[in-house]
Amino acid sequence: MNRHRNHKFIKINVNQLTNRMSPPQFIMLIFLLLIFIGTVLLSLPMSAASGLSVGLLDAFFTATSAVCVNGLVVVDTGTVYSVFGQIVIAVLIQIGGLGFMTMGVILAILLGKKIGLKQRLIIQQTTQSKSTSGLVKLCLYIFCIAFAFEAIASVILTFRWAGEMGWGQAAYNAVFHSVSAFNNAGFALWSDGLSSYIGDPVVNIVIITLFVSGGLGYIVIVELFRKRTWKKFSLHTKIVLLSSAILLGVGFVLLLLLESFNPATFAQLSWSERGWAAFFQSATPRSAGFNTLDINSMLSSSQLLIIILMFIGASSGGTGGGIKTTTFFVLILATINTFRGGGQIHAFDRKISMDIIMRALAVVVSSIACVLAVSLMLTVTEGMYEDHFLEVLFEATSAFSTTGLSMGLTSELTSTGKVIVAITMFIGRLGPLTLAYALAKKSRKSKLGYPEDHVLIG
Amino acid sequence: MNRHRNHKFIKINVNQLTNRMSPPQFIMLIFLLLIFIGTVLLSLPMSAASGLSVGLLDAFFTATSAVCVNGLVVVDTGTVYSVFGQIVIAVLIQIGGLGFMTMGVILAILLGKKIGLKQRLIIQQTTQSKSTSGLVKLCLYIFCIAFAFEAIASVILTFRWAGEMGWGQAAYNAVFHSVSAFNNAGFALWSDGLSSYIGDPVVNIVIITLFVSGGLGYIVIVELFRKRTWKKFSLHTKIVLLSSAILLGVGFVLLLLLESFNPATFAQLSWSERGWAAFFQSATPRSAGFNTLDINSMLSSSQLLIIILMFIGASSGGTGGGIKTTTFFVLILATINTFRGGGQIHAFDRKISMDIIMRALAVVVSSIACVLAVSLMLTVTEGMYEDHFLEVLFEATSAFSTTGLSMGLTSELTSTGKVIVAITMFIGRLGPLTLAYALAKKSRKSKLGYPEDHVLIG
Ligand SMILES: [K+]
Ligand SMILES: [K+]
Repeated sequence: MNRHRNHKFIKINVNQLTNRMSPPQFIMLIFLLLIFIGTVLLSLPMSAASGLSVGLLDAFFTATSAVCVNGLVVVDTGTVYSVFGQIVIAVLIQIGGLGFMTMGVILAILLGKKIGLKQRLIIQQTTQSKSTSGLVKLCLYIFCIAFAFEAIASVILTFRWAGEMGWGQAAYNAVFHSVSAFNNAGFALWSDGLSSYIGDPVVNIVIITLFVSGGLGYIVIVELFRKRTWKKFSLHTKIVLLSSAILLGVGFVLLLLLESFNPATFAQLSWSERGWAAFFQSATPRSAGFNTLDINSMLSSSQLLIIILMFIGASSGGTGGGIKTTTFFVLILATINTFRGGGQIHAFDRKISMDIIMRALAVVVSSIACVLAVSLMLTVTEGMYEDHFLEVLFEATSAFSTTGLSMGLTSELTSTGKVIVAITMFIGRLGPLTLAYALAKKSRKSKLGYPEDHVLIG
Repeated sequence: MNRHRNHKFIKINVNQLTNRMSPPQFIMLIFLLLIFIGTVLLSLPMSAASGLSVGLLDAFFTATSAVCVNGLVVVDTGTVYSVFGQIVIAVLIQIGGLGFMTMGVILAILLGKKIGLKQRLIIQQTTQSKSTSGLVKLCLYIFCIAFAFEAIASVILTFRWAGEMGWGQAAYNAVFHSVSAFNNAGFALWSDGLSSYIGDPVVNIVIITLFVSGGLGYIVIVELFRKRTWKKFSLHTKIVLLSSAILLGVGFVLLLLLESFNPATFAQLSWSERGWAAFFQSATPRSAGFNTLDINSMLSSSQLLIIILMFIGASSGGTGGGIKTTTFFVLILATINTFRGGGQIHAFDRKISMDIIMRALAVVVSSIACVLAVSLMLTVTEGMYEDHFLEVLFEATSAFSTTGLSMGLTSELTSTGKVIVAITMFIGRLGPLTLAYALAKKSRKSKLGYPEDHVLIG
């Protein structure tokens, strides 16, 4: 009897299994698989510069960070990993960031296969597009855009760096940092990030352009290329552009203002360097994760500001994380609307449905719960008698929002801490909605017809 | 011409002015007036124990803290203020907590006046009741309940303390702390709060009963007395009781667990003392503000937990603050519902309307914004080169949620910091909704008929 069952169970082949899975479940599985492969590769002795394996835990942490385009590191990428290890990291970043599914579609096209509805649904989920038609075209478009951005940036950076490090090194660094920047991964080959180029216009402009473009999301970039005028943009694109601009502006002004009081950062810099530094550090929390200033030397107030910006994060359907700029915008809109007495919620002469507002609510509530729970766990595992709460909150938010900026705690994490942060990076990359849909049981429609009753709020 | 206008302006008398005000505006005005009167009285030399005025700023801070039933103090209430000053504080607490309007109605009844619709609307706003009918009866009921609770508690505490401090002192302390506890004010006459009674069952039970009852809100207490069985309770009462019980339980277990590792707190205590201490400290963030453990000696993790509990706070229509247990419950419910695929949101076989969920959303978004903005300002004004962010976040949340617990920052605040915290206490006591309605221009109904458009969330 038992034997018979086992036999039957084995007969359910992989194909049947993937057919039974919903798109969110499939996406989760692929991410887990990528992390597993990355862990194996990075734990090989040949991946380490010393020729001795970095160990399973650190390889697992690095692979998770790369696949989830996070950028938090427990060992220094530039010195601990060999060139082979660094290439593995770059490939994981590219697959995790560009979207393995986009890659899958391209592969399928190249191999002449037909793409079924199932696959279309999965691509739709990862690229957050509205319909399942025209997806192949979209994927090709995305691939071309990503390639064009990274190629052009690599060329420019190679020329910029050739003088100081020779053509070979310059090209290698240029490609690695271009891939890392466009995919909002934040992995750098220098232990102080991009601090050597704090006032360098070329490096600043190229890197910022890359990660801002990647963080806007493919839909927005495609619309920017295709429609070109504000009036023709969709509501989504308008909200993304407006809220990104506001967050960038507010962050720039506040950081410039606050850090001007800081002898550890701005005192040694010229005014143009200060401007670039404030601009870079206000853009990077939109989940790029690069930095040109030592985050740990900044004022607590600036660090809190960066935490808030990281939590809001980038835009949907891109390589960035966080609750997303659109979620933030919709929540503020709904709040102001309620304070004004309610009614229809609208922006740019378009109505925003209750469904979207409820999604925004669910995302923000679960995200706050996640960051607070992780912070609580880390205050226990990482030196429970010390008070370094801002650092803990910073790393928790950075892990969840896939930003990868650090005040220094991550490099000193305990083993338990590393596992907690790795899981947080994974949850953050999938996002609360995808994760919930992947883990939820079959959706039960709630029974209709309950009588309404009043509850006092606030 | 100008003269004529001035003349006309003066003619608009106070009566006309109050008639033009909305209930939220009226409530705000009365609170400001109470704070003004309190400031004047507490700055008198006779209010200070030394006979020398405590100064306008500290008097203003204490008056605001008392009227807003907060409990944060910049000077020690027991040693700095005279008996006269302490009585002023107790009266301000009673008026601010019990609700000046309830008091006003009682006075009006005693004076034989008729209560108009306008007054009824104001009472409705302050007591958060559903209709304007039966308000006089409700006010009387509330008054009787408050008086009964405080009287019985005072008698018990007098007997408890008579042995150690004599009948006169015992009675004085009993009345002061009963008033402070029932109104969730958290003002104590001892500088270490109630730490001397950490394991004392009588003091623990009496004080906890008082502030928990006050924090449940009058509607719930009235229902508890009148309806008695769970089935007959309204949805509001059921949600309040359930979420309060869950928060109390979770807080108790976590604090007991976490502090067991702490040599600075639980190591010196017996098991029964630990139990009482964990119970007291898990109940007090529901905005009572008393403490039997030194909050500053607790672990960062426990402090973070208390911050979260303070932010959630007590229940609507009572003497407590925070976003309220019902708001928290509704948000969690809406989030889970969205993750399960949407549909009608319901609890205890009752539907919860979109209107209520939107109010909850507005309250939580504006409350988070307020606490973060205040924290950001305090990191700048209170030693911008030091990292004591957890303390700053703790005091900001404590001020906003009218809890009044402190890790010690408040007693060392700069003058600017005192003003910021005082304003936060005021905003927190009024609540975001009342404040917004008081400050908002006449409600503009949004234009109907915008076409819907999609936005990507999360
Ligand atoms: K990143
Ligand atoms: K209080």
